[in-house]
Amino acid sequence: MRGYTFTLREFLYRNLEPAAQAEGGLSHFNRVIVWLIIFASVVAILETEDTLRGAMPGVFWIAEFFIVMVFSIEYLARVYAAGEQPRYSGVRGRLRYMLSWWAIVDLLAILPFILTGGTYNSFIIRLLKLLRLLRVARVGRFSQAWVSLSDAIYGRRFELALSGTVAFLIMLISSAFLYVFEADTQPEAFGSIPRAFWWSVATLTTVGYGDVTPVTVLGRIFAGFTAVAGIGLIAMPTGILAAAFSEAMRKRNELAKNENDVKEDS
Amino acid sequence: MRGYTFTLREFLYRNLEPAAQAEGGLSHFNRVIVWLIIFASVVAILETEDTLRGAMPGVFWIAEFFIVMVFSIEYLARVYAAGEQPRYSGVRGRLRYMLSWWAIVDLLAILPFILTGGTYNSFIIRLLKLLRLLRVARVGRFSQAWVSLSDAIYGRRFELALSGTVAFLIMLISSAFLYVFEADTQPEAFGSIPRAFWWSVATLTTVGYGDVTPVTVLGRIFAGFTAVAGIGLIAMPTGILAAAFSEAMRKRNELAKNENDVKEDS
Amino acid sequence: MRGYTFTLREFLYRNLEPAAQAEGGLSHFNRVIVWLIIFASVVAILETEDTLRGAMPGVFWIAEFFIVMVFSIEYLARVYAAGEQPRYSGVRGRLRYMLSWWAIVDLLAILPFILTGGTYNSFIIRLLKLLRLLRVARVGRFSQAWVSLSDAIYGRRFELALSGTVAFLIMLISSAFLYVFEADTQPEAFGSIPRAFWWSVATLTTVGYGDVTPVTVLGRIFAGFTAVAGIGLIAMPTGILAAAFSEAMRKRNELAKNENDVKEDS
Amino acid sequence: MRGYTFTLREFLYRNLEPAAQAEGGLSHFNRVIVWLIIFASVVAILETEDTLRGAMPGVFWIAEFFIVMVFSIEYLARVYAAGEQPRYSGVRGRLRYMLSWWAIVDLLAILPFILTGGTYNSFIIRLLKLLRLLRVARVGRFSQAWVSLSDAIYGRRFELALSGTVAFLIMLISSAFLYVFEADTQPEAFGSIPRAFWWSVATLTTVGYGDVTPVTVLGRIFAGFTAVAGIGLIAMPTGILAAAFSEAMRKRNELAKNENDVKEDS
Repeated sequence: MRGYTFTLREFLYRNLEPAAQAEGGLSHFNRVIVWLIIFASVVAILETEDTLRGAMPGVFWIAEFFIVMVFSIEYLARVYAAGEQPRYSGVRGRLRYMLSWWAIVDLLAILPFILTGGTYNSFIIRLLKLLRLLRVARVGRFSQAWVSLSDAIYGRRFELALSGTVAFLIMLISSAFLYVFEADTQPEAFGSIPRAFWWSVATLTTVGYGDVTPVTVLGRIFAGFTAVAGIGLIAMPTGILAAAFSEAMRKRNELAKNENDVKEDS
Repeated sequence: MRGYTFTLREFLYRNLEPAAQAEGGLSHFNRVIVWLIIFASVVAILETEDTLRGAMPGVFWIAEFFIVMVFSIEYLARVYAAGEQPRYSGVRGRLRYMLSWWAIVDLLAILPFILTGGTYNSFIIRLLKLLRLLRVARVGRFSQAWVSLSDAIYGRRFELALSGTVAFLIMLISSAFLYVFEADTQPEAFGSIPRAFWWSVATLTTVGYGDVTPVTVLGRIFAGFTAVAGIGLIAMPTGILAAAFSEAMRKRNELAKNENDVKEDS
Repeated sequence: MRGYTFTLREFLYRNLEPAAQAEGGLSHFNRVIVWLIIFASVVAILETEDTLRGAMPGVFWIAEFFIVMVFSIEYLARVYAAGEQPRYSGVRGRLRYMLSWWAIVDLLAILPFILTGGTYNSFIIRLLKLLRLLRVARVGRFSQAWVSLSDAIYGRRFELALSGTVAFLIMLISSAFLYVFEADTQPEAFGSIPRAFWWSVATLTTVGYGDVTPVTVLGRIFAGFTAVAGIGLIAMPTGILAAAFSEAMRKRNELAKNENDVKEDS
Repeated sequence: MRGYTFTLREFLYRNLEPAAQAEGGLSHFNRVIVWLIIFASVVAILETEDTLRGAMPGVFWIAEFFIVMVFSIEYLARVYAAGEQPRYSGVRGRLRYMLSWWAIVDLLAILPFILTGGTYNSFIIRLLKLLRLLRVARVGRFSQAWVSLSDAIYGRRFELALSGTVAFLIMLISSAFLYVFEADTQPEAFGSIPRAFWWSVATLTTVGYGDVTPVTVLGRIFAGFTAVAGIGLIAMPTGILAAAFSEAMRKRNELAKNENDVKEDS
């Protein structure tokens, strides 16, 4: 803390922008925001349950109002502080900032409440409610974990594409056969290849809901062979994703460890 | 591109036969065919859905007509160009070509429309519709992936046979026991060992539809033990298949990488 | 083939006893028996299906009669030929042979037909039908595969016991909790801990029939946690069994390869 | 066994306290207690089944009475013998002992019978029955296995937390989407995000009960993608738990082997 006078914009920028922290980690202000995001997400999730909202409608409205107020002030502060960076300075720079990925997420997380006043209940508006769950995504702004994850997935995109294609073809073939065998007896569930796909996905991932099952002898024989032979192949894109993810986690753990070591050394 | 005059047959052969490309990869003409095959497959899949076909019957008929025209011309061109190879030259050579695996697939992909004029709707004819999905298989003509896959599976045929036999015996034994315990209470589902097999397959692959479940105490106890002990063993042919496939994919990736390296070097 | 006169008993012994073949492998006679066992097993399985038996009752009776005749003659021949071994010679030796494991299996595979004349249809007699499936087990007499398998399982008995105990405890604990939460609303399915076990097994093996599911909020929350946390632990005895089996298969493959190498060398 | 006179308290302490055995392993007395705990657990489990308790109510009551008598005497003896350790001597020391973890488990395993006289049948009292299953947990007092297990889990707490968070987020996102798509058609099952969570857990663990499934086209398409992509990621906390456990088992096996070696050497 050298003897240096901050402007308000500089102060806001240093406290709001995660990348502006000299020592790494989050500023105190951003820590509060992360906790508030988690709280806001829980509120958004619980509010969808009518029995809870019916029991205490005022509580949810007040919580939403408080959350949206804080997030709105934070949003305006971020837009103002963005001017500290040369490329976002001036009015046109601020507009450019507002069209950046994270600024849009920040805005979408508060818009639904502002637009509807917190009173909504239909399909289109339910989509807006979903937007509020972008609040969960906002935590990503403060975390490098998703960067390493998307890197790991990108590094295996060919394997994913190839095994995903094979998985898709196996589902397609089994759907086609079950469509042929079962369309007459179960037109609702197997009356077309796209319809039979629902059965294919549920069976070959071994989820097996049982809402749709073959009933003819030929259909069952084919379904049995499909299940035994196909499950291993469907598991491959799944396995590749899991491997990519666990690799990303390992790298991140090592990074975190190194950072701790550095901190301990200093 | 040396100063050399092509005959039409030679020109067609060089553009149609995937193996005739000097630099590897697909000719521009074959790239168009691959995309058309994918489009034709999508049409064949969506057309099975009555609600879609009812909404725009003309569109599907025209698309099918266009696809079949192009594929018919392509088929005739391939038969004509096959004469470029000594073993397929002459009328008897052309007949020999028409009986080769890929030529039959090419023909079966267009026959259903030609035979029925695109208007059909019963079990036998649904089989013909399925034939049109051989269009998907036609992509295999242009891909070496399935060669390495079938090689990998062939290399593990003993392990597959052995573990497949064990999986079958476990299913047989559990079917036999559930037949004994449940036949009296559920004759429809467990009235014979072949009937009980449907339950066995669904349980031991962990799909577990639930359309057929044991209800007697003895049946449930035995089913519980079977599930815990048997699932690992059933997973083996599945695991061997997946390992063979992922090996084939790895080899193919390396091959593709080497080819890219060679291209970059030249 | 030295100039040496066989007695009938010696001839039968050399052709019937798998261990008596000098060159390894099965004698021509035993090969026929193995195929007959497979045929007899298929007959026994299909016969349980009433629609098949009703369509052609005579065929099944004649097939069964033929099978039992051949197996009876084979059984008597084995008992007679057993006298070739010192410990089974004489009347008391033969009785001792008839009480050996494989002789009992051989006898049980023919007894049901002899006792009932091939006409039966009730629970107790269905158990006898099951005995005929011991015909499948008879193949084991001619195979060393099951020896190496049971060795491999025996070698991991401690791991199996420990992980099996843990799996059992997790199932017990989740059963107990669901009994507490769900007994009032679903007394039939969760009215006692043993009843709730059926749900535990179906859930933690991921079979998930869905015939029995928690409906209370607390039950569902607990079931969700159980599913996420417990599935990996239940998979352990399953994984140990699979590993033991794949090891046994690998050993057997190597053995078979070595034998082939020896044959090729000689 | 040197010439040394024991006091009663010293004698009890040496026989009751697992850690007080010089040679490792369990004293004869504690072996009897372990078997009695297993017997008491079986009684507690079977007693929840009304058909069994109805058939022979006296037997269960007498068994419970006998078990609780023995455990009560054992409990009092443990409290008395605890005085052998300096920190538990005197009346205040005994109270401190009674508030230690294992002493509370011992007490809770006998309390329900003493409080209710063995006659109970309602939700609150069913919780007391559950307490009696703490008898199973009592075996842990005599086993070091759970120590190494909890160590292994603790050592991987960061990986578990990270992958558990990812699994939770995937479930949350798929719940949110299915809530949007299915809330109108199935308000009971998908009417809020917490409700849709039950579907998410059942699907992404591949349990797939089928009591709740998407029925709209959009819901099914999204559910299919979720199932294929999400299953691998959900399997990660599960896999980490299993790896931690199998590591703990391996360590324990080595420990047991070393102990056996030491015994054989001496």
